[in-house]
Amino acid sequence: MQLLDGKVTALEIRQELAAAVKQRKIEGKKIPHLAAILVGNDGGSVTYVNAKVKACEEIGFESTLIRYDDSVPEDILLAKVQALNEDKSIDGFIVQLPLPEHIDEQKVTLAIDPKKDVDGFHPMNLGNMLLDIPGFICATPAGIMELMERNNIKTEGKNCVIIGRSNIVGTPLSLLLGRNKSPGNCTVTLTHSRTQNLAEICRNADILIAAIGQPGFVTADMVKDGAVVIDVGTTRVDDSSKPKGWKLVGDVNFDEVAPKTSFISPVPGGVGPMTIASLMMNTLKAMELKGK
Amino acid sequence: MQLLDGKVTALEIRQELAAAVKQRKIEGKKIPHLAAILVGNDGGSVTYVNAKVKACEEIGFESTLIRYDDSVPEDILLAKVQALNEDKSIDGFIVQLPLPEHIDEQKVTLAIDPKKDVDGFHPMNLGNMLLDIPGFICATPAGIMELMERNNIKTEGKNCVIIGRSNIVGTPLSLLLGRNKSPGNCTVTLTHSRTQNLAEICRNADILIAAIGQPGFVTADMVKDGAVVIDVGTTRVDDSSKPKGWKLVGDVNFDEVAPKTSFISPVPGGVGPMTIASLMMNTLKAMELKGK
Repeated sequence: MQLLDGKVTALEIRQELAAAVKQRKIEGKKIPHLAAILVGNDGGSVTYVNAKVKACEEIGFESTLIRYDDSVPEDILLAKVQALNEDKSIDGFIVQLPLPEHIDEQKVTLAIDPKKDVDGFHPMNLGNMLLDIPGFICATPAGIMELMERNNIKTEGKNCVIIGRSNIVGTPLSLLLGRNKSPGNCTVTLTHSRTQNLAEICRNADILIAAIGQPGFVTADMVKDGAVVIDVGTTRVDDSSKPKGWKLVGDVNFDEVAPKTSFISPVPGGVGPMTIASLMMNTLKAMELKGK
Repeated sequence: MQLLDGKVTALEIRQELAAAVKQRKIEGKKIPHLAAILVGNDGGSVTYVNAKVKACEEIGFESTLIRYDDSVPEDILLAKVQALNEDKSIDGFIVQLPLPEHIDEQKVTLAIDPKKDVDGFHPMNLGNMLLDIPGFICATPAGIMELMERNNIKTEGKNCVIIGRSNIVGTPLSLLLGRNKSPGNCTVTLTHSRTQNLAEICRNADILIAAIGQPGFVTADMVKDGAVVIDVGTTRVDDSSKPKGWKLVGDVNFDEVAPKTSFISPVPGGVGPMTIASLMMNTLKAMELKGK
């Protein structure tokens, strides 16, 4: 068993991006600038956004954090999105999800200029991904592809089973892994809550990806010997032994599954750091797509 | 074995659309108007476009056919697309594919206003489909869903195997069949040229869909007893006994497969008529989406 260490791979990417920033400075080119809108004080969201801002600082990107109270009216948020769309100093931006209930997330997602949508959630970017037209690929699926590629995981002709069909992980990932590219060319089965005989289907997977947010859902009996297992779950579970009072737990029962695998990504330290690294790669790409 | 008779189901849809047109006339509302651009004289394309124009006439839609010679320059075609985007009398239009080699198909597809893109090929419409936002679903996948729904084929929890990952059939169909809707909620496996053990995978399918354009590719040994089989293939094969000198042949070896199935769609007369019916449904929808 080999660990798919997202921290190590993400560090490698951050170093490459830092080198690209240095080179841009030498050439007198614009430095990438990422903005993030954070609404409210949800613990997970604050942690994620802070990690994104920190990553920008480490790489040498410029960053702007815009915070609103939980009670911000939708029209104020939409006006800020419009302002960021028009602001030439900002190359890409994200609106951290989830948003409070009184705000229509879809309306906000659709308001973002696809050319600055570095999260890749806009339908135009999802459609471009499907058609293999240049654009932004959502950060988590892109990060998983990058993690596999940089760890020399072969995907062509492999049976891949994805558990969970969310719009931001499972479904786009199924398209990326199935398409006629490298990495890609997997035979993908996308499973979900209505799937029958899930364990049996999973046991046929050369590559098994769990993205449902149910701690320890994938057990050893669901995994083929020698499979590659990617754990996208990040559920906060109470743990009084930890300084913060909680720990992140993945969808895979790591202790019993790991010994059966050829490669496995841990939680934390697997897909999480790769998601942030992808967002940074997308921010640099935002400039390149504009020819800046 | 029951036949999934696309001619019968498409006729039912055309009658419903004709009734809707009549009702619109009574209410003094605009009559849907579909335009089609046809470049060159490819036999298949001419047949398809003529069938679309004929369907419009039968239903009572207005239609406009715009023909260009094979040698039409790309900029002339793009200017016509732009003119149709702006023409308020046209509710939806298609550019019949394939286009001659000197014309960039992707450029043409991207030039069509997504709100008039009744073929559903624009990335914005594919992304909307993925996110379940109202828009146009490509005609062939939409027609297959309609054919199954109107013939009471249960899809929830079924294993579905699709052979072929094209952007206009296999890939979008995998999204439609897998999503959390009815019809939908299948566990979908999308297979292709790099798939290993294809026959074995197909034998697990409750619903098997062939969309690769290889006559007779699916043989009886690939099909589970009682499966639903949908044949999307339409290859012209020489046949001197036919008045035109050719016949349409599907991807399924019908004679040997049919007896094993619960439902099977024939070629011709299965998916083909449904594709045209879907295009007509999309044209009416184009008006409804605009609130006309």
